[in-house]
Amino acid sequence: MTVKQLSLPELTEACVRLGIPGVGLWRAPVQEYGVEAAAKLVREAGLGVTTLCRGGFLTAADPAGRAEALADNRAAIDEAVTLGTDTLVLVSGGLPSGDQDLAGARERIADALGELAPYAGERGIRLAIEPLHPMFASDRCVVSTLDQALELAERFPADQVGVVVDTYHVWWDDRAPAAVARAAGRVFSFQLADWTTPLPAGVLNGRGQLGDGAVDLRAWRARVDAAGYDGPVEVELFNDELWARDGVELLEEVVERYVAHALPR
Amino acid sequence: MTVKQLSLPELTEACVRLGIPGVGLWRAPVQEYGVEAAAKLVREAGLGVTTLCRGGFLTAADPAGRAEALADNRAAIDEAVTLGTDTLVLVSGGLPSGDQDLAGARERIADALGELAPYAGERGIRLAIEPLHPMFASDRCVVSTLDQALELAERFPADQVGVVVDTYHVWWDDRAPAAVARAAGRVFSFQLADWTTPLPAGVLNGRGQLGDGAVDLRAWRARVDAAGYDGPVEVELFNDELWARDGVELLEEVVERYVAHALPR
Repeated sequence: MTVKQLSLPELTEACVRLGIPGVGLWRAPVQEYGVEAAAKLVREAGLGVTTLCRGGFLTAADPAGRAEALADNRAAIDEAVTLGTDTLVLVSGGLPSGDQDLAGARERIADALGELAPYAGERGIRLAIEPLHPMFASDRCVVSTLDQALELAERFPADQVGVVVDTYHVWWDDRAPAAVARAAGRVFSFQLADWTTPLPAGVLNGRGQLGDGAVDLRAWRARVDAAGYDGPVEVELFNDELWARDGVELLEEVVERYVAHALPR
Repeated sequence: MTVKQLSLPELTEACVRLGIPGVGLWRAPVQEYGVEAAAKLVREAGLGVTTLCRGGFLTAADPAGRAEALADNRAAIDEAVTLGTDTLVLVSGGLPSGDQDLAGARERIADALGELAPYAGERGIRLAIEPLHPMFASDRCVVSTLDQALELAERFPADQVGVVVDTYHVWWDDRAPAAVARAAGRVFSFQLADWTTPLPAGVLNGRGQLGDGAVDLRAWRARVDAAGYDGPVEVELFNDELWARDGVELLEEVVERYVAHALPR
């Protein structure tokens, strides 16, 4: 998504040329390209698929909405298998229209995970709950902190359900460093983005390029490292201004910024 | 600020007519009108001044910026005395440019409170630390949760430094209800606004009219009541769409919404 202006073939070619060893994929562009074809393309380029984004949206209160969400998540798990990744990222979902009960919505997520985790586990896929910044609590994700994500994940085996640490979503939280330590063995994905202001309307597409904002990326990297995380580090920028630029140039810049601001010294 | 389209005389007249017993004032319009004149206007209308907004912005790291902030806060305390309120609301301030150390900025707030709290206390003014939503952490207020606000306030006497509970800023936080209980005796102001999406660019002026959004206002009211709070309830809406409407009509609507969504049943 960081360089969504690139087609999948352009992306894989640029990754190979720049020495980027893996790529996190999103369902929509993969489905457009064809899941099997995308899997073949990435595999033949020698790239790993770090994660698939995203399942989730598990907060529907009505039986039909819930059944639909479960079916869609099973499909996402199957797609993850085809793509050769071991991790499906979950954006848990917001409040149903007219609903004000955040705790109730989180319990519905736990219920849904109870159905999905074994299905995923049998297929070698881990479910990674991503806490989203509290500004998304009503309309996108009622899981707002790493502590809340862990409280959900810890109800399940550590090889089935874990968490995503995304600096953009947790950087402000003074309790998140302790939560990262507690998450040892359950950090399934580590994602980088910087926090810049002013936020754009809708607040979705204002993630900052690494090094442009308020986040001490290297400190978060050290925390995740200390928790024993040795998986891939993803850079996930949703940003209209970055998307308007040449995708390959942007990807080169991301690599430079990663080295400058996130690689351990 | 909810009806900033009204002049101070229009505001006081409308409050009296609608049976609103007190009003929270902001420094800029009061200074424009004249602090003494505003005090006289409100007093002669028989209205209380619930709070003065706002002091704060105490995170400057350089001596000159720090001295300037302290002087400005002393002036705000003096204005509060003149206006006849006992509470100055503090918006603590964001990160200085290039700074990524949230904890360090919060310690500078504590240092500044050490200088300001006695000055305020001698004049009968209480300092109320307002945690702002985490989306403001970098540029407006490094105090993002009620727990953080209390950790600062509790270093000082309970009649000198306390907190603001504003539903807009804390509604998403599953730890805030326990923090409200812990804040018993230190809740100096209780403010209502609803959470609606999409957020506008800059995210400052998108606070929802009571009843339009995701916040269970009556539940928060009950929590604050249970903590022994018996002070005024303020409605604080920053909203470009509401500001474009007739101010008196809007104020009437606020009263209706308050009764419908926040008054204990």
